[in-house]
Amino acid sequence: MISRVMSAELAEHAGQRVTIAGWVHRRRQLKSVSFLVVRDRTGLAQAVTARDLPGEESVVEVTGTVTASPQAPGGFELVAPEIEVLAEPCTAPPFDLYRPEPGATLPTILDHAPVALRHPRLRAPLEIAAAGVAGFRETLDGLGFTEIHTPKIVGSATESGANVFGIDYFGRPAYLAQSPQFCKQAMVGVFERVYEVGPVFRAEPHDTVRHLAQYTSLDAELGFVRDHRDVMAVLREAMAGMLESVRRRAASAAALLGATLPEVPAEIPAIHFTEAQRLTSSEEPDLSPAQERRLSEWALREHGSEFLFVTGYPMAKRPFYTHPDPARPGYSNGFDLLFRGLELVTGGQRLHAYADYVAALAARGEGTEAYEGYLQAFTYGMPPHGGFALGLERWTARLTGAANIRQVTAFPRDLHRLSP
Amino acid sequence: MISRVMSAELAEHAGQRVTIAGWVHRRRQLKSVSFLVVRDRTGLAQAVTARDLPGEESVVEVTGTVTASPQAPGGFELVAPEIEVLAEPCTAPPFDLYRPEPGATLPTILDHAPVALRHPRLRAPLEIAAAGVAGFRETLDGLGFTEIHTPKIVGSATESGANVFGIDYFGRPAYLAQSPQFCKQAMVGVFERVYEVGPVFRAEPHDTVRHLAQYTSLDAELGFVRDHRDVMAVLREAMAGMLESVRRRAASAAALLGATLPEVPAEIPAIHFTEAQRLTSSEEPDLSPAQERRLSEWALREHGSEFLFVTGYPMAKRPFYTHPDPARPGYSNGFDLLFRGLELVTGGQRLHAYADYVAALAARGEGTEAYEGYLQAFTYGMPPHGGFALGLERWTARLTGAANIRQVTAFPRDLHRLSP
Repeated sequence: MISRVMSAELAEHAGQRVTIAGWVHRRRQLKSVSFLVVRDRTGLAQAVTARDLPGEESVVEVTGTVTASPQAPGGFELVAPEIEVLAEPCTAPPFDLYRPEPGATLPTILDHAPVALRHPRLRAPLEIAAAGVAGFRETLDGLGFTEIHTPKIVGSATESGANVFGIDYFGRPAYLAQSPQFCKQAMVGVFERVYEVGPVFRAEPHDTVRHLAQYTSLDAELGFVRDHRDVMAVLREAMAGMLESVRRRAASAAALLGATLPEVPAEIPAIHFTEAQRLTSSEEPDLSPAQERRLSEWALREHGSEFLFVTGYPMAKRPFYTHPDPARPGYSNGFDLLFRGLELVTGGQRLHAYADYVAALAARGEGTEAYEGYLQAFTYGMPPHGGFALGLERWTARLTGAANIRQVTAFPRDLHRLSP
Repeated sequence: MISRVMSAELAEHAGQRVTIAGWVHRRRQLKSVSFLVVRDRTGLAQAVTARDLPGEESVVEVTGTVTASPQAPGGFELVAPEIEVLAEPCTAPPFDLYRPEPGATLPTILDHAPVALRHPRLRAPLEIAAAGVAGFRETLDGLGFTEIHTPKIVGSATESGANVFGIDYFGRPAYLAQSPQFCKQAMVGVFERVYEVGPVFRAEPHDTVRHLAQYTSLDAELGFVRDHRDVMAVLREAMAGMLESVRRRAASAAALLGATLPEVPAEIPAIHFTEAQRLTSSEEPDLSPAQERRLSEWALREHGSEFLFVTGYPMAKRPFYTHPDPARPGYSNGFDLLFRGLELVTGGQRLHAYADYVAALAARGEGTEAYEGYLQAFTYGMPPHGGFALGLERWTARLTGAANIRQVTAFPRDLHRLSP
């Protein structure tokens, strides 16, 4: 490996001659002195010299003597540097990476993602996302979950019916999976508690700030629950673990973005759907974005919580595999988790008896033929179980205050965008 | 949550009345006494009673008094049990799950995966895979890598040209990504060191024991390397971390399968391709499976290592983005890692200068048009870098001695199989 110290470690090498390596983040050539700011994966470091400097985004190794300098990033700089250029750019970035704010529109940023993401503010959400996923896995590993990997190519477009991408699968029609729902349920029969972090695909024909054609779904499913409340308790732990991981692994990225990391209450407040309707003076069978915002405001005001569970959504609005509330038929054991005015997670208890699946499909006017692979698990004895799915990009956007989900996705895919 | 103790914890509750929950793994009704073996995610537990017992794969809660019993799994059993049935199967499994070996052919097993994977020997490889992936991430996190998630839908079929799945992408043609190669290289410009664990797709028209249409690729890529040897050093760490994780997290699964976990030498032996040719008396520009086996035997004999790096494969046999060996043009800075006679990992140093990409494509008679999104990263200054990709299922198969990769994949996808 190129022998180097990281820019964040300069202070530990005061007085020594060391080599750093990275990209020229900024050069400033004054009359008698020049400043070279080098960016590596840990931050920025400055070198001071009298010579001509390579241009921005050149890849350099800089060897110099670590010297205290209050104006330098981190309080130290390299003096008397020797500079070796490892690679030179042949194009200038579409905007200056060294300015505090990226001076470009979102389409320009996305068209130039390979270089735009080098901007510290554009990179930061991806650091936060990585930390969040690590916390999700850590928490569930600690609770006895097993990680699974399920097929993204499926033989029938059954789960939601619409908005699937079709594939030519060796001359046969197939589809990209919209979720690992069926497989993760089947795997409850094997491991009791499973999770998957992976891509899911939605052929969303709408151009919105909240939807992508591909996103990263954090899915969990667990057996031997009493009802949906046990699933909610696990989700609470996962959410707390994700945020704790951001605090531990990506604090500076969060600080750079001015993101306030929420506290997760020991018990997240939960209200029934009918209560949510009453609070928002609605009789609609689903909650609108405006109602979700009002409910989040209510939870903050009444419970001091940025999180709110809404439980018991009407069965008619939930997928056929949803378990009804035994005490209030017509209402489900399904829930959403709202965070800062937005639905962030959907989950619930599922049906577990084969006969209940047959009946649920019949009630929706469907036969079991298209679901044979799925329903097989339930013919062999499945425990009461439930789970949830959380969209990573939506979580990251909500946490960092990004208005558009594309701002927190490295290479987004949507109605118009297939590259880079 | 259903209040229960896990079967593996019975010994800690000797003399107490506790509840376990799981599936009826086996029932044996003798004249005066019946044995009920319950399977949960931690193992097996036995209850002894005089009553009639629910059938295999019934989901049960069993409350009884924990009593020492040398013949019982774990040395303890539940006596005077009350049994509650949570769910009953409506079909018998296609083979007995309680027999030590699954008594079914591979097609039967795959057709009935949701129940077949409940067999301890069929579940074990998936436990080992999960442990391996956890170790992979742990190791790379510790080395300053950042996890990324890249698009699985791409606009052009450029990386290898053949064997891609076509998608109807909002009326436009698109393709399933064969690897995150291009994106992970671009992200070296952002994070220097990145990894991804995710699905990749190959429209393999051949029906072999080594290939699937979808598999889980463990990809890593890192910048500021001197050459491919730095990449090999990181791969060595990742491999050791994966195996250490299996020892720590899935030792009983490995023991059940009789899998011998290899030692990873502090430095894995490495030989140049020309030396590999000489040792196998070959002049072919690539290594055949038979040669790979002979080389592995040689490494074990000469170096006591089950791992062997072969470096310097001819440029003509490697992808266009491969970095040549500056000292021996015609040979590459690419490598394979052989393990127990099989190529397990492919990697190498990549080109990093934009002009070198243009020249490499021209030398293969290709223009840059189809690669624009990819090549963009290299116009902005990229450090010397390299990486590798490891197929999770192939790793698991090799480690557990599975003859067919489908034996270690939950729901495999191939030429013939799209369900379950």
